[in-house]
Amino acid sequence: MSEASPLLVVGSVALDSVRTGQGERVDALGGSASYFSLAAVRYCPVRLVAVVGADFPSGFRQLYDAQGVDTAGLQIVEGKTFRWGGVYSEDMNDRETLFTELNVFEEFHPVLPDAYRQTPIVLLANIDPVLQKEVVDQMESPQLVALDTMNFWIESRKEELVSLLTKVDLFFLNEEEARQLTGYSNTLTAAKEIMAMGPKMVVIKRGEYGSLCLTSEGWFALPAFPVENLTDPTGAGDTFAGGVLGYLSQRGGDLTDGHLRRAVAHGTAIASHTVASFSVDGLLDLGLDQIESRVRDLWDVTQFGQRP
Amino acid sequence: MSEASPLLVVGSVALDSVRTGQGERVDALGGSASYFSLAAVRYCPVRLVAVVGADFPSGFRQLYDAQGVDTAGLQIVEGKTFRWGGVYSEDMNDRETLFTELNVFEEFHPVLPDAYRQTPIVLLANIDPVLQKEVVDQMESPQLVALDTMNFWIESRKEELVSLLTKVDLFFLNEEEARQLTGYSNTLTAAKEIMAMGPKMVVIKRGEYGSLCLTSEGWFALPAFPVENLTDPTGAGDTFAGGVLGYLSQRGGDLTDGHLRRAVAHGTAIASHTVASFSVDGLLDLGLDQIESRVRDLWDVTQFGQRP
Repeated sequence: MSEASPLLVVGSVALDSVRTGQGERVDALGGSASYFSLAAVRYCPVRLVAVVGADFPSGFRQLYDAQGVDTAGLQIVEGKTFRWGGVYSEDMNDRETLFTELNVFEEFHPVLPDAYRQTPIVLLANIDPVLQKEVVDQMESPQLVALDTMNFWIESRKEELVSLLTKVDLFFLNEEEARQLTGYSNTLTAAKEIMAMGPKMVVIKRGEYGSLCLTSEGWFALPAFPVENLTDPTGAGDTFAGGVLGYLSQRGGDLTDGHLRRAVAHGTAIASHTVASFSVDGLLDLGLDQIESRVRDLWDVTQFGQRP
Repeated sequence: MSEASPLLVVGSVALDSVRTGQGERVDALGGSASYFSLAAVRYCPVRLVAVVGADFPSGFRQLYDAQGVDTAGLQIVEGKTFRWGGVYSEDMNDRETLFTELNVFEEFHPVLPDAYRQTPIVLLANIDPVLQKEVVDQMESPQLVALDTMNFWIESRKEELVSLLTKVDLFFLNEEEARQLTGYSNTLTAAKEIMAMGPKMVVIKRGEYGSLCLTSEGWFALPAFPVENLTDPTGAGDTFAGGVLGYLSQRGGDLTDGHLRRAVAHGTAIASHTVASFSVDGLLDLGLDQIESRVRDLWDVTQFGQRP
């Protein structure tokens, strides 16, 4: 791990209340930055920039420390922590948001500790593109800028988001967001259109169906690893991004097509562990050997012989 | 081609009227047996059992002949040919049926010419399971029995379908049908449940997301080949089955896991050609070399390095 480039993530830390067919959790650790950092830290040093309220359980803070996530950039301010509540459909393909309480997140502006400004790899996890831009402006020539977003920002901050894309190397979004952003319903066509907006690589997340990726060398596709004991799909996409960037950080952020393919296999593998437990529980005891074992399983179930 | 086992298909031949974002066709050649036979005949001799009315255009009959499909089992009876009409959503992921006129199909009972009874491989394409059973009963110890079905039969003929599964080697169905048949929303769990009903192999079709297959050796998954010039998705599943069984017929119907994987890659490749044109047009000039070239493309876009 000592050779791996450190990785900075800016995003949300939340208390999630989730109900699925497998049970229920109240005020569990959640948020894009939580899933991402606890996935990526399997691979490399991770620096977390986010905000929580004074009510944030000290146990969760200790959990980050114990897992090796650097929380010098975690602001603790007066007020309540961001809370999200949702319930999943029986097949877990849909979810209904029951409540979103932004709380301290409403006034959040990311401030990078001086020691963070030269981090070579940064993930701008799903927050307002205006704040994502503030982070980029505080960085000193990062080697790899990755971006995630959501439908809400494509609707309400499209101009800011598109402007930000010119500064982004690797863009994660799901199929619906790709359609929303481009107007194209064909996923590959939409990905090409998005590439033309600036990113060097576009990773279209397809949930239980895996991912479709576009680079300057062409596209590639991977199925997801099916999870029979699906328990809580929350954070699957953030965990996936954590595996992708964690793997790339171990390759010094090198963005060749071959590295990205393998990185996406790692993202796929680690995400399949997350969704088998509630909250971030599936990540906490996960060793790199177990992730690689799942990558091997994924390899075994996607081969169809020699190249024709 | 002379070494390949001949293949029998029993299913529907229809006149399809289809509207998509790319245009419209009226009374075009369609039906499960049409797509299947015109795909499989790229690989092996194909024998067609179906029924049409006296109004069936002689040009379509000649088309089968010219393509090398044996139509000795195509009944031509008084009345009108089965007609289906539908319109696809803009992204082509949904379709609305505008009309279904069974016509001569209503009284259809498949009758196998004597010369067909010893065909080693048979596809029971999507028709009433009662009729599918009639076909099996007329066969003389076939080596490989494959089955396709649809939601309508799972609803209305579940008992007959489940009984038929005990005689089936390879079962094609889509995700929704797998859920409907088993009550399990998890695709892999549903596939395992279906395996326990009798088939040696279950192929779950996922449309634009590819397929998930289960054999006694385990499961494997392949993404679909994305088609940017998507024109008419009708018949994609039947074409896929035609590629799978056509490939297997060239291997003497041998059902080892490795053969099935490669066969599914062929099905994926040939289906990507069909949906780029209306009706069966994408199949008519298609050479095995073009299908293998698409299999090679599929290989290239699904690799992620050496086995870990």
